[in-house]
Amino acid sequence: MQLVIGNKNYSSWSLRPWLGLKVAGIEFEERLHNLYAEHAREERLQWSPTGKVPVLLDDDLTIWETIAIAEYIAERFPLAQLWPQDPIARALARTVCAEMHAGFAALRTACPMDVRSRHAFELTPEVAADVARIVALWADCRERYGIASSEGEFLFGHFTWADAFFAPVVTRFVSYGIEVPTEAQLYMQTVLALPAMQEWIAAAELEAWTAP
Amino acid sequence: MQLVIGNKNYSSWSLRPWLGLKVAGIEFEERLHNLYAEHAREERLQWSPTGKVPVLLDDDLTIWETIAIAEYIAERFPLAQLWPQDPIARALARTVCAEMHAGFAALRTACPMDVRSRHAFELTPEVAADVARIVALWADCRERYGIASSEGEFLFGHFTWADAFFAPVVTRFVSYGIEVPTEAQLYMQTVLALPAMQEWIAAAELEAWTAP
Repeated sequence: MQLVIGNKNYSSWSLRPWLGLKVAGIEFEERLHNLYAEHAREERLQWSPTGKVPVLLDDDLTIWETIAIAEYIAERFPLAQLWPQDPIARALARTVCAEMHAGFAALRTACPMDVRSRHAFELTPEVAADVARIVALWADCRERYGIASSEGEFLFGHFTWADAFFAPVVTRFVSYGIEVPTEAQLYMQTVLALPAMQEWIAAAELEAWTAP
Repeated sequence: MQLVIGNKNYSSWSLRPWLGLKVAGIEFEERLHNLYAEHAREERLQWSPTGKVPVLLDDDLTIWETIAIAEYIAERFPLAQLWPQDPIARALARTVCAEMHAGFAALRTACPMDVRSRHAFELTPEVAADVARIVALWADCRERYGIASSEGEFLFGHFTWADAFFAPVVTRFVSYGIEVPTEAQLYMQTVLALPAMQEWIAAAELEAWTAP
């Protein structure tokens, strides 16, 4: 199984499946791809009809959407429990992943992932609304399933795809100095303390490629 | 189980889970909501933290994202086979649903769903690129799993969530007179011939509400 990913400093979508696979201890071959290299898009079109990363390659199978990669991995490795076991919690976890998948356009446009950098940033009303929604969403999941469950400090107790989907938001809040309530800060620390997260951040800091 | 949906003429996201439930013969209560009524957003915020439809309500559970509704229904009613049985086909079906979920922005912006109307429309290069990608995607799925399988003429042979996800695209191609190759037209006819699709279209034509 191979996972094609983009620059670790910039590719927020690549971080999501990479982190899920790493935390679950699933073996895979990482194929790191510089999004800004000459002919990069032509290269990506070999794997993905949309020309985007990440892409999961498993024998004859090619999956070019992160949500579908998440479902495929969860089905192939059920013991990793990358979705919550409880059907209600699982439905909620999928809902917040889908909300992330197509939402938070203001935050994503104003604050592109840039793991190793720190930017001065003035909150616009649109970004502030996205941040408020994310803080409420984290609190809602953690109150219902995380902190309450004694299973752990993640959104649904133990680490699930929901945490992987919001991990790039955590790095954005750090990079752009976005202030959040203490509860949200505690959640961010939980994500940042993951050894796999530390590994990704260290690689992003060492990466020689720079966006034009 | 209740499904909150928006105006049948306009709400493309509402059509997707509604169609899947209907084609699968799953009983549910339809709660039709006029997106343009006074205080409509406040009303929606009772059910959904994002203020959007569709929303699935099932006892204590609220699901406000279509992909998560699709997964929940598929888990609760496995005999409906709303995902393909074959794991490779299932991964591909999820991939094209996810591509629809966050993609095709040019088509969606230029050609909002308007089931009962016909609009003169000049293709822009961006919309033409979206249309070309959709036509290629339909052909790819149908060649691999649809026409080839003798199971049926849908994207993966029999009707699945993938067809539900692209059903609002079918109505857009009709409403905006977008020309597609014969193969794609045959697929569109397959979707439009579904009795549930005819029921939705008839309701959209009778709906008294009009977008401002």
